[in-house]
Amino acid sequence: MINKRLEKLRQIMTKYNFDAIIIPSTDPHQSEYVAKHWKVREYFSGFTGSAGVLVVMKDETALWTDSRYFLQFEDECKDYDVNLHKQSIPHAPEHVQWLCDTLAENAVIGLDFLQFSKAQMDYIKEVSASKNIQLKNTPNLVNEIWADRPALPAFPVDIHPLEYSGETTASKIKKVQNKISTAKADYYLFSSLDEIAWLFNIRSKDVDFTPLVTAYALVGLENTVLFCDSNRFSATAIETFSKLNIEIIDYELAIAELQKLDIDKKIITDISSLNYAVYNAVQSKFLFQNSIAKELKSIKNETEISGAKNCMLKDGVALTKFFIWLENELPTREISEYEIGKKLESFRKQQDLYVGESFAAIVGYKGNGAIIHYTASEERAALVKNENILLVDSGAQYKDGTTDITRTVWLGGTPTAELKTAYTSVLKGYIALEQLQFPKGTVGMQIDAFARFHLWQHGLNYPHGTGHGIGSFGMVHESPQGFTTNPATSSGRTSHLPNQLTTIEPGCYKKGVYGIRIENIVLSIAKQETEFGNFLGFTPITLCAIDRQLIDKSLLTDSEIAWFNSYHKMVYDKLSPMLNSDEKKWLQRMCEEL
Amino acid sequence: MINKRLEKLRQIMTKYNFDAIIIPSTDPHQSEYVAKHWKVREYFSGFTGSAGVLVVMKDETALWTDSRYFLQFEDECKDYDVNLHKQSIPHAPEHVQWLCDTLAENAVIGLDFLQFSKAQMDYIKEVSASKNIQLKNTPNLVNEIWADRPALPAFPVDIHPLEYSGETTASKIKKVQNKISTAKADYYLFSSLDEIAWLFNIRSKDVDFTPLVTAYALVGLENTVLFCDSNRFSATAIETFSKLNIEIIDYELAIAELQKLDIDKKIITDISSLNYAVYNAVQSKFLFQNSIAKELKSIKNETEISGAKNCMLKDGVALTKFFIWLENELPTREISEYEIGKKLESFRKQQDLYVGESFAAIVGYKGNGAIIHYTASEERAALVKNENILLVDSGAQYKDGTTDITRTVWLGGTPTAELKTAYTSVLKGYIALEQLQFPKGTVGMQIDAFARFHLWQHGLNYPHGTGHGIGSFGMVHESPQGFTTNPATSSGRTSHLPNQLTTIEPGCYKKGVYGIRIENIVLSIAKQETEFGNFLGFTPITLCAIDRQLIDKSLLTDSEIAWFNSYHKMVYDKLSPMLNSDEKKWLQRMCEEL
Repeated sequence: MINKRLEKLRQIMTKYNFDAIIIPSTDPHQSEYVAKHWKVREYFSGFTGSAGVLVVMKDETALWTDSRYFLQFEDECKDYDVNLHKQSIPHAPEHVQWLCDTLAENAVIGLDFLQFSKAQMDYIKEVSASKNIQLKNTPNLVNEIWADRPALPAFPVDIHPLEYSGETTASKIKKVQNKISTAKADYYLFSSLDEIAWLFNIRSKDVDFTPLVTAYALVGLENTVLFCDSNRFSATAIETFSKLNIEIIDYELAIAELQKLDIDKKIITDISSLNYAVYNAVQSKFLFQNSIAKELKSIKNETEISGAKNCMLKDGVALTKFFIWLENELPTREISEYEIGKKLESFRKQQDLYVGESFAAIVGYKGNGAIIHYTASEERAALVKNENILLVDSGAQYKDGTTDITRTVWLGGTPTAELKTAYTSVLKGYIALEQLQFPKGTVGMQIDAFARFHLWQHGLNYPHGTGHGIGSFGMVHESPQGFTTNPATSSGRTSHLPNQLTTIEPGCYKKGVYGIRIENIVLSIAKQETEFGNFLGFTPITLCAIDRQLIDKSLLTDSEIAWFNSYHKMVYDKLSPMLNSDEKKWLQRMCEEL
Repeated sequence: MINKRLEKLRQIMTKYNFDAIIIPSTDPHQSEYVAKHWKVREYFSGFTGSAGVLVVMKDETALWTDSRYFLQFEDECKDYDVNLHKQSIPHAPEHVQWLCDTLAENAVIGLDFLQFSKAQMDYIKEVSASKNIQLKNTPNLVNEIWADRPALPAFPVDIHPLEYSGETTASKIKKVQNKISTAKADYYLFSSLDEIAWLFNIRSKDVDFTPLVTAYALVGLENTVLFCDSNRFSATAIETFSKLNIEIIDYELAIAELQKLDIDKKIITDISSLNYAVYNAVQSKFLFQNSIAKELKSIKNETEISGAKNCMLKDGVALTKFFIWLENELPTREISEYEIGKKLESFRKQQDLYVGESFAAIVGYKGNGAIIHYTASEERAALVKNENILLVDSGAQYKDGTTDITRTVWLGGTPTAELKTAYTSVLKGYIALEQLQFPKGTVGMQIDAFARFHLWQHGLNYPHGTGHGIGSFGMVHESPQGFTTNPATSSGRTSHLPNQLTTIEPGCYKKGVYGIRIENIVLSIAKQETEFGNFLGFTPITLCAIDRQLIDKSLLTDSEIAWFNSYHKMVYDKLSPMLNSDEKKWLQRMCEEL
């Protein structure tokens, strides 16, 4: 089936004289997860991973993805004529240089300009220039083949109420307008869906795992336009927006409307999210800046922080019940990873304000835990027994917040000393970064290694960043702050600020043998002010016992043991009032002093 | 006098219709220290600091420098009509935006293109474009005013023998030629003086503190041209070079000769060191790459490492004798910081193969130690008494290596607990970074904070990078590796590699009260290879006791105490054979177990 689609695509390439087509995994808003309408890469390759770029040439079809997805690719694409190219850095545009090296001078590449940001197109142009390779827009190419392509999402849009958002749309728009004034500009154009959801306090279910609304937004000094189909809004919502001088114009009309803006107007926008089709259409002058919404959104207000803490209670209760279920059930039968994931979801569903999972849960038994973005399908899930190691990374969307937590548990048998050293080093790394005090202005890349150095000392490491920002009933991976080894990413270069929510999640993975990861969400807080500056730190808000069976206590310092005991006292104190007496007893045992 | 020079400069600006002149502190090779001929900024401002840019406009003269030099500026420029603009980041081109904001549309800026790199000019062009500001070359402007301008250096050039360099010029040039072949280019153009000194194994004394030779070099696949006055070389040297197909052509002819290269030739060069006058003159196509010489040079060969270790013995002996002298002399009289610096130099002068200081020694008593690039002139040096704290940062050029070391000593009285906490935290930071094991590929910015986090914990910090590469009878600050908080610098982005020499020098500075810094040179070494990668670390090669009077032992862990004792055992074992019995006794006391 995939091969037939590729055959049709090649016929069309011949018809239009394209030597190659680049099909990325994103939508016109550079979203991480996309609506079905935009799953073009999946349609032509069969590959469902969240990151990957397909390149179709006359005699080869090639897919670039990173190490998290190699196994999944092999599984999903084995029957198709698609070759895997292994990316050394996730999301790096390594296919561009390869493609330009492969193509002849004056070749023509087809791309849907909607799916490429201005910054990405600048890079492709730069690389392709020396061979005079032409880049042509392919806006309707896919529709000629994909007859039953799903329509754009049209779900009703919900207003995210003040009791969860903590700040009115009017107040947020005022901040954007101040920014426009300061920059002596006329408009601010937003195209990132989570920025728009935050700015207008709107939510829907256009995108898997993330409560976003497909839209663009143009904020002016007096009036604002939200490009989104008006029939998705209630009459009340439209009236409320109207009072705020917010007009709703159909999504499909966005480019045509933006084209009408005067040539002498100045529009602030973010070069990394604005797509090239919009950029190309607009006559006005763009001022490229890092999005003001990104930083404002990353600093949570009191309501959002209190919502997040409330979600941790709910998640903590669900996880406690889940681990009790697992402990009781495993001696009686083998359970598939898939079923375990579903069971965990069922405990979260019982919680107040639950909306859905915040990403596809990762339940990885033994060696499967070493596949970093592993998702067990019902068919190929491994059977979990009453022994060895299990990694569970999961999260939820609640109306008052978003969660993400990883625990790794030992299910029975005798662990090796090597495994205990790795697990204990991961734990020590988590504690070191969470306990670090650092000056304001410190960026993620400067302190990421505090979660690694205990592993390094034993010749161990992990091939991913140490943590990411997280939204408030928003994206589970939220820019800009985080911890990473990569200076090219925003989380490497961005200062941590008080009242941000960020994950800390060191790990250790041995191929075919084990995967270990311990992940909490932490809140950034001001800790000390001296003549040397303002110093910040973190405080954990995730509430869930950390398995102690794999800890080699001889490797822990007194202060690490004190941290462990104090964290577990907090977990027990906060969760126990919501548990029945059997559950309380179980949690008490999990939270005993080490 | 300075004011008169500025007046003359303004007359000439009027004559040529310049609205502003930018005068940087560098030479045509982007050197850190420059020959007298290039001290143009000093000539027109009176400011002698090694970093700073002068901007002369019709009605204002402004100098940009960073916090290391504020005090020195006030002292040196108080009588002149020069306004200080405080740079927030050292070397950042903050004056460019300011100047372009200040000037009117279509204004004209004069610059000597020789003193600006291609990369710097690109930046100035970008900022000045929106106001259509013109940039005009001012090659001979200074000569019209500076009648007695010193000539370009013409000292004899020494061949740096194989017993110190460890690699022949032929072998080094072969590596460059391989790089040219791989890149399908025709030439490699070098304009950085320390790269040329390394490549041709040549040394002279053109530049203060650094044994460099003023030259350009063009390496081709068959032939090489060294642009340097041939009368600076011995007949033997010229003949030896000739056998290697190296032709020597006068320095002043470089641009004219490079202009003759065919337009279809490709020249590899480094955008950050090539000056704009050369770039502008050459017709051929440039391929901008990070200099191959930088990385090759940073990895020391066995001879260079053994030379460096030998220098540490000599420096260690000189410093031991110096500190004994200081301890004996201080009870008898007050000694000026200036005299202390000279005395230290005198002990180094007694050492084999000594050439000179590698930078102006920093001898900072009490609050003077908090001025990071403090150099006490004979006139304004403070008098050091038998009490309180003294910081001594110094280094030497020996024919077999370059040194750089800082020690901070307590001279008498009772230190405060605050001071002991700061000193002990600096020491702990030094130990943490020196003892760190980290994977290959780790860059300076990822691990710099290991030297800071003990300070951070007490609300302390220091406003400079943690260390820099160091040359082999070369530059005391040598690119590319190091430790820094700044992602924009090469030392932030460059991986550490085995056999590099780097300083580790955390500090803590309280304005007007104290300056603390502890600095050793460390050698990068391979430590462990596992399935998770290759792991590197450092080993200290500097040999000099670290003062223990300011250590609060209760803050040290057992492993830190073990490090301290083991380091001092090494210092005693290596230095004592070269000391007399009194000196041995003194050192034994300094190296006792803690």
